[in-house]
Amino acid sequence: MSDRPNTPLLDQITRPADLKRLSDAQLTQVSQELRSETISAVSETGGHLGAGLGVVELTVALHAVFDTPKDKLIWDVSHQCYPHKILTERRDRIRTLRMKDGLSGFTKRSESPYDPFGAAHSSTSISAALGFAVARDLGGVIPEGNGDAIAVIGDGSMSAGMAFEAMNNAGHLGKRLFVILNDNEMSIAPPVGALSSYLSRIYAEEPFQDLKAVAKGAVSLLPEPFREGAKRAKDMLKGMTVGGTMFEALGFSYLGPIDGHDMDQLLPVLRTVKARATGPVLIHVLTKKGKGYAPAEAARDKGHATAKFDVVTGKQKKAPSNAPSYTSVFGDTLVKLAAQDDKICAVTAAMPDGTGLNLMAERYPSRTFDVGIAEQHGVTFSAALAAGGMKPFCAMYSTFLQRGYDQVVHDVAIQRLPVRFAIDRAGLVGADGATHAGSFDISFMTNLPGMVVMAAADEAELAHMVKTAAAYDAGPIAFRYPRGEGVGVELSEEPQVLEIGKGRIIQDGARVAILSFGTRLSEVQKAAEALSAKGITPTIADARFAKPLDRDLILDLVANHDAMISIEEGAVGGFGSHVAQLLLDEGALDHGFKYRSMVLPDTFIDQASPKDMYAVAAMNAEQIEAKVLETVGVVDLAARRG
Amino acid sequence: MSDRPNTPLLDQITRPADLKRLSDAQLTQVSQELRSETISAVSETGGHLGAGLGVVELTVALHAVFDTPKDKLIWDVSHQCYPHKILTERRDRIRTLRMKDGLSGFTKRSESPYDPFGAAHSSTSISAALGFAVARDLGGVIPEGNGDAIAVIGDGSMSAGMAFEAMNNAGHLGKRLFVILNDNEMSIAPPVGALSSYLSRIYAEEPFQDLKAVAKGAVSLLPEPFREGAKRAKDMLKGMTVGGTMFEALGFSYLGPIDGHDMDQLLPVLRTVKARATGPVLIHVLTKKGKGYAPAEAARDKGHATAKFDVVTGKQKKAPSNAPSYTSVFGDTLVKLAAQDDKICAVTAAMPDGTGLNLMAERYPSRTFDVGIAEQHGVTFSAALAAGGMKPFCAMYSTFLQRGYDQVVHDVAIQRLPVRFAIDRAGLVGADGATHAGSFDISFMTNLPGMVVMAAADEAELAHMVKTAAAYDAGPIAFRYPRGEGVGVELSEEPQVLEIGKGRIIQDGARVAILSFGTRLSEVQKAAEALSAKGITPTIADARFAKPLDRDLILDLVANHDAMISIEEGAVGGFGSHVAQLLLDEGALDHGFKYRSMVLPDTFIDQASPKDMYAVAAMNAEQIEAKVLETVGVVDLAARRG
Repeated sequence: MSDRPNTPLLDQITRPADLKRLSDAQLTQVSQELRSETISAVSETGGHLGAGLGVVELTVALHAVFDTPKDKLIWDVSHQCYPHKILTERRDRIRTLRMKDGLSGFTKRSESPYDPFGAAHSSTSISAALGFAVARDLGGVIPEGNGDAIAVIGDGSMSAGMAFEAMNNAGHLGKRLFVILNDNEMSIAPPVGALSSYLSRIYAEEPFQDLKAVAKGAVSLLPEPFREGAKRAKDMLKGMTVGGTMFEALGFSYLGPIDGHDMDQLLPVLRTVKARATGPVLIHVLTKKGKGYAPAEAARDKGHATAKFDVVTGKQKKAPSNAPSYTSVFGDTLVKLAAQDDKICAVTAAMPDGTGLNLMAERYPSRTFDVGIAEQHGVTFSAALAAGGMKPFCAMYSTFLQRGYDQVVHDVAIQRLPVRFAIDRAGLVGADGATHAGSFDISFMTNLPGMVVMAAADEAELAHMVKTAAAYDAGPIAFRYPRGEGVGVELSEEPQVLEIGKGRIIQDGARVAILSFGTRLSEVQKAAEALSAKGITPTIADARFAKPLDRDLILDLVANHDAMISIEEGAVGGFGSHVAQLLLDEGALDHGFKYRSMVLPDTFIDQASPKDMYAVAAMNAEQIEAKVLETVGVVDLAARRG
Repeated sequence: MSDRPNTPLLDQITRPADLKRLSDAQLTQVSQELRSETISAVSETGGHLGAGLGVVELTVALHAVFDTPKDKLIWDVSHQCYPHKILTERRDRIRTLRMKDGLSGFTKRSESPYDPFGAAHSSTSISAALGFAVARDLGGVIPEGNGDAIAVIGDGSMSAGMAFEAMNNAGHLGKRLFVILNDNEMSIAPPVGALSSYLSRIYAEEPFQDLKAVAKGAVSLLPEPFREGAKRAKDMLKGMTVGGTMFEALGFSYLGPIDGHDMDQLLPVLRTVKARATGPVLIHVLTKKGKGYAPAEAARDKGHATAKFDVVTGKQKKAPSNAPSYTSVFGDTLVKLAAQDDKICAVTAAMPDGTGLNLMAERYPSRTFDVGIAEQHGVTFSAALAAGGMKPFCAMYSTFLQRGYDQVVHDVAIQRLPVRFAIDRAGLVGADGATHAGSFDISFMTNLPGMVVMAAADEAELAHMVKTAAAYDAGPIAFRYPRGEGVGVELSEEPQVLEIGKGRIIQDGARVAILSFGTRLSEVQKAAEALSAKGITPTIADARFAKPLDRDLILDLVANHDAMISIEEGAVGGFGSHVAQLLLDEGALDHGFKYRSMVLPDTFIDQASPKDMYAVAAMNAEQIEAKVLETVGVVDLAARRG
């Protein structure tokens, strides 16, 4: 606690209304204190640092000028929301960020009225702001009232199609609405795409340093309450600026670019648009991700996400790893295969590091494509690469693949094109919570005709599946694997091509069979150890494939056991449902058989450690053990032992 | 046959290579004949007429200039592909369009090498073209070869986020690539959004009539092979034109606008870009949907989709309807409810007529939002309307809701916002085939925590469900219903609010229970009639809800029958899977019970009549009857009777 920064002015701020009493100079000081507090908090909790540091001044200025929570302030993706949380009645809990029962790492409606619309996936903020603006004008009634709607969106997020759709609609409707384009030339990775180059050109044409003088010069010319710099902003609205034609084409008034770390620019511009705007306005703000904290500014990812760290040195306190991450095993294996096959190529949607494709990008840059935050395009682009004779690996997090679902159906599955889907972050993900859980891919992929769906039980299996996918050319194929470290098994020198639709027996046993799909296998094995002490030796099988199912294996298990339990890290409708459909079709349950399907519970699970999340999901070893005992009839057993 | 048009020149054309022998004047004549042939064919088959008529000249010009199928010509959505099919070895089958075993109404890879990338949903063409261009440059090998890639995309389709994502990526990569913006100021409905206004302004600034003179004047100045008008096109490439800044901002060279019905403009421009382009080029072509056929030009929808018709009068030959369509029942009911509740509002993604929201738009225009082809935005916009205190009905076709799936998860379900999803075209759809089938929504909606999912058994039930959704404010709720006419039941004067999670018994019976979810109920009832003649009276239940399930009803059915069969118009992973999970969890099958789940088969079903498609899916009355007999043991029964 002794390390905590001195924050005398911030200590007087509990909620945004408290900012209204402060002078502009004091708001600048509050910003400095807020930056220190943010660094201090994240040093204790880990989390998203760089994005928040980049918007400290913007956060203060927005809350000082607008009337939240009546005015709806919507942070896109909301990696940058920690300073906002500190200012909105949550400073007392800011050091519980991303912990079980603590504050979410993202904005969240259920957490605070100051979070009118939660976000964790990108590019939803303009749609949300437009919805609030329209609801306001239609007389929608909510407890906090419906005031202005402000979306704060990064330049990376702006490149997603969804943001364009929202701009197109907002420009058409013409409602009063504010979009703050937070241009830090950096999303999680450096942004790619033509829009990014366009924004850079605007900046080059009108560096904000010159505008600062304009803003200050205009101050004295105007009456209260628009004293500070309003003239400049008004002129901007009239089209004084040279940039922004593209946004103007979409029906927005464009202001900018302005320096997002300079209160003397932010405050007058925001006050003016608040006073004068009648339609949609885009304010182009230039910021630096990681601003004001040297280790973040110096980092390649600008301190995007960090473990706990030492504030003075910036050194992160990471636990030593015991095994390679699934992500790196995927990346390494793909690079090896790409060395042998020049048709292998890879597609990521703005997550080269997160998906392990940074390794491909280093070795085979011409065969590696970062399409930007553009899952829809990324999937169809992959489909056409396959149609053009390449072997594309389309690597996306399970939760983000949801963005490209129609393209998986319409462009890949219906056309039977051999796109290889590498589905990372499948299952529960820990600190990122419900918005990032990969809970639905098994059901939304297995329901597609012709799709092959695999799940890796461990990192060696993952390597086999990458190789299997590379070798499979008859149609689309997907393999899923979780966030985090593998279980520490040895990796083969040379991965194998698995037989499509065939599982494997891990352990022969009796009475009960456990059929595992994915990485819960290690917990199943732990459960089996505990069970053997109680006289039960379950058969354990790794299904490997949810589609096509290993019919022979499954019917064999049913024929030779009294009970079978399947387990998967996914919602109902997936692996277990396909197994059930098979057993019903075959009449295998007609004359009595105990089959149970363990799936993720029908609830969104809040952030916690993975272990705790799996406990909530009832998928840890003890719970698997309990399920087995319950299914085979623990009462009888207990009675027999007793 | 006597009515067929006289097409002497077209009769000599089997494939695009045949066009290479013709003079420009002859190409113009071929276009006229192709237009007549298209009108004649569609008059016999019904289908999409207006879009094809608008691109007749463009189709001829593209095939004359480029080298298909080596060059990849990709028609966005492909409503406009009939003239293309006629020119590409399919004229002999053009009068089987959209029929069982006939030509697809869309481009389709499995149908022809001239269809390198099928499409039926909008806005995929630029992503596809980019994929082919990249595959070409990476050395991808396919039988037809990899040449140029050309996407033809309408102005409506261009407004979708996916198209923007692809433009952004293509502009960044800088590969040689052609995008033809087919600007007819009309998609299925008049286009909406700021982009549409922007395109209109370009047109106003530089009417193409003047450019025609320029193109012709330049002819004599240039050597072969770029004689005709190449100079003009080259100047355009250098930035002579005033419009297109927005596309240039995205890294494209912009040419246009040019008159898409004038071969003297199309041919020289296409020849020039083919000869000279090094990077991505956007060619802005102005066309008229329905061009050259007066009844189509005069129609409100420009002859978008038509039944069979009389060529001379344009009068459509529609079968008389026996019952209102589900779509109109939804639209009517919503208007009635909106009259009583000013918080009810509605969102469509460019399908006001298709979803029945045209009725809302007429009566309550300020509460009806056509967001354009923008399902991602449309869903999140609806979520924010709900957050702002409104009661939004988000009406989309099942297959298009796939485009907004992540938004359903991330913005609606996780936040438990009461968006009402009206899911039209659920189940098999007939002539539009596999790409438009609503096969997956039950599984991809029921797997979401907190989502209420209903299916209407008939049109009266649909009205109840609209009312139920309006009354339900605790979270998201969805109701699905099929394409086409209702079954003819009487509609209540006043729809009822259904109890959430409660089904209903339709008929009491014995031995076997049939649990229906959705409109297969009428076939179930037919099957039951046939069965009663064979001494079996099944109990029939209408589940109404797939989520939450009516646990008591289902366990009751199991307890009181020897067998149960569920039926739904959806892929595995949906209603039947949830029923199975319930029964397994409850141990209801442990001691023997025959449960069967009838779901759509694991295959994409090609176009046919709905009746024929349901036959393929094994979901007509006879097949339900057979399933019952098989399940209860027809052999025993036959033996008993015999």
